[in-house]
Amino acid sequence: AGDSKAGEQKAAACMACHGAAGKAAVPLYPNLAGQHADYLAHALQAYKKGERNGGQAEVMKAFVAGLSDDDIADLAAWYSSLQP
Amino acid sequence: AGDSKAGEQKAAACMACHGAAGKAAVPLYPNLAGQHADYLAHALQAYKKGERNGGQAEVMKAFVAGLSDDDIADLAAWYSSLQP
Repeated sequence: AGDSKAGEQKAAACMACHGAAGKAAVPLYPNLAGQHADYLAHALQAYKKGERNGGQAEVMKAFVAGLSDDDIADLAAWYSSLQP
Repeated sequence: AGDSKAGEQKAAACMACHGAAGKAAVPLYPNLAGQHADYLAHALQAYKKGERNGGQAEVMKAFVAGLSDDDIADLAAWYSSLQP
């Protein structure tokens, strides 16, 4: 499983859209706080593998391109640890 | 905006994976309770338009194929109205 402490650091780039506490200020972006870690990792991998395309997915693909599997696991652990 | 009362009825098919109260018992499936309605509608439309593929997306595509835009708006209203 991921390291949520490390994930907190890595989440700096995500906050602009997903909020400091994982609650997106813009309703088009998903809240991530308290989401299942497995699902979050699955979604990030889907963006990374190009399984999600069009619209917002293109923005996410740019953000996840540089993430390693460990980064993804850490980010998923961090956001799932937050209070929804 | 969608009609969450109508959405509640239409969510019968979704409960098997996403839980009766929008909290998925299986960690690979996302919790939907309290998620932004705009995001939920966006995600359902993405499955319907074939913008999400592979793995779990294939399951979702089968479920959303028959949904109208109103169905999608109602389901999004229903799940976003639930307590996360």
